[in-house]
Amino acid sequence: MKWPLSVSIKEVGPRDGLQNEKKFISTEDKIQWINQLSHTGLSYIEITSFVHPKWIPALADAYSVAKGIERVEGVTYAALVPNQKGLEKALDANIDEVSIFLSASETHNRKNINKSINETLTILTDVVQESLSSGKSVRGYISTVFGCPYEGHVSVQKTMRICEELFEMGVYEVSLGDTIGVATPKQVQEITTEMLKRFHSDKLAMHFHDTRGTALANVTASLNLGITRFDSSIGGLGGCPYAPGASGNVATDDLLYMLEGMEIETGISKDKIHNAALFIQEKIGRSLASHSLQVYQAMQS
Amino acid sequence: MKWPLSVSIKEVGPRDGLQNEKKFISTEDKIQWINQLSHTGLSYIEITSFVHPKWIPALADAYSVAKGIERVEGVTYAALVPNQKGLEKALDANIDEVSIFLSASETHNRKNINKSINETLTILTDVVQESLSSGKSVRGYISTVFGCPYEGHVSVQKTMRICEELFEMGVYEVSLGDTIGVATPKQVQEITTEMLKRFHSDKLAMHFHDTRGTALANVTASLNLGITRFDSSIGGLGGCPYAPGASGNVATDDLLYMLEGMEIETGISKDKIHNAALFIQEKIGRSLASHSLQVYQAMQS
Repeated sequence: MKWPLSVSIKEVGPRDGLQNEKKFISTEDKIQWINQLSHTGLSYIEITSFVHPKWIPALADAYSVAKGIERVEGVTYAALVPNQKGLEKALDANIDEVSIFLSASETHNRKNINKSINETLTILTDVVQESLSSGKSVRGYISTVFGCPYEGHVSVQKTMRICEELFEMGVYEVSLGDTIGVATPKQVQEITTEMLKRFHSDKLAMHFHDTRGTALANVTASLNLGITRFDSSIGGLGGCPYAPGASGNVATDDLLYMLEGMEIETGISKDKIHNAALFIQEKIGRSLASHSLQVYQAMQS
Repeated sequence: MKWPLSVSIKEVGPRDGLQNEKKFISTEDKIQWINQLSHTGLSYIEITSFVHPKWIPALADAYSVAKGIERVEGVTYAALVPNQKGLEKALDANIDEVSIFLSASETHNRKNINKSINETLTILTDVVQESLSSGKSVRGYISTVFGCPYEGHVSVQKTMRICEELFEMGVYEVSLGDTIGVATPKQVQEITTEMLKRFHSDKLAMHFHDTRGTALANVTASLNLGITRFDSSIGGLGGCPYAPGASGNVATDDLLYMLEGMEIETGISKDKIHNAALFIQEKIGRSLASHSLQVYQAMQS
């Protein structure tokens, strides 16, 4: 088995992590924390979401965060944008990159966005067009690729169709989300193999949640097939809205531990990530899910 | 990537799990719990350890547990045995199978057993001989195969040499332990590939700890190479003596979730395992590390 020599990690903790945490982190702490993250070697941070605060109160301070953080050269600062209105605020806050999202399953998309997939695609077409004409790159998220909490199995054809539409709009990369953390290596292999018949591996990222402990196994299965782009969340921040107490995104810390052991380069300092994770762990006020963080913490004390 | 159609799981929670838990579980609760485990479809349970209670106070009631449990047909009840004295008690309690152990690294073996590897092998030769002549099968554990807390890297040649000696004694299977949970898929692939040049996959089991979250990724790497035998601990019981707060053995529950998703048969009921895990979780008095258990629990409430 040959694995890639290097992979690119997109840090989503400040957005996907925090949006699923119960505790509101103050704007000042968010800024201080993101500034720490900017000096860890990370080249990409999704810093917040411009979804209406009614839906994501944890990130109601999106504009202030985006305006308040230090912009370090070499780091791309992205934000989630649901529609034209969100885009205006995001552009006003001068984020570097726009992340758009929708679901592969119709029911999840309706529950999450209150629109059909086709209606969502129409809205996103305008968002992408305006983003690109404002000089911003656009990344796409597809949720529930590996399973839907309402529909169960989701066919890879649905994901592929949406992927094609996103690329046609001008999205440069699509992140395939295991939103509820149900995937196993076999399914990852099957779906990824199908996707790679149509799209180059440089166009696809994997976004695993560790709800059932399989996230790093799924990363391994993806690496087996040459995937080199992964989303992760520092400390394993976040949870699963469908199962309180369950784990959130795969932890950046654990992902780095594994990749370092596999001699796969990321350019990121694991110690600096651990320290930034300890900072936010203290603010959240509970032990975060990252395994290697707990080891690091025990070793420090 | 082709994976095996079925794998065999050896449940080590009552021994390796409990021995690393701070809280003493009463003999009555242990017996009730092991009796539950006997009806989950598990075909193998390591129920206790006949190591001197001074070293493992959590399992000081080894004899009473072994005598007190129900013996269900089709289930092998094994116990850890360090020496002749332990063996006498184990035989007196009529366990089905003897587990012996030593480390691949000299320093860990000395710290753990207070003897050199060669001295340990001499003692074990007698233990194995008497076990076999008493009609008991013997399984061997090698600790620190993937790394030693004192020596760091451990050469695969050391493991191989010990493995050969154990097989020569009459041990039928050797379990390769990642005692401190440092392994990553690359290392698993390298060590397993070397081991499989000398030994048939039926003779080797993998014993992963999830200290840094890589256990299921390491299982995946092992499955890639045709390994079909894994040790695991219900609920992910146990911790790491070198890092308080860190995770213990890979959780049987999570392993089952992943294997089921990969359509690999085990003969074990995941729901029954979850219920037995909830029983011991309540006795331990803290949330266990198993991810799928937390999801199961949330879904029940």
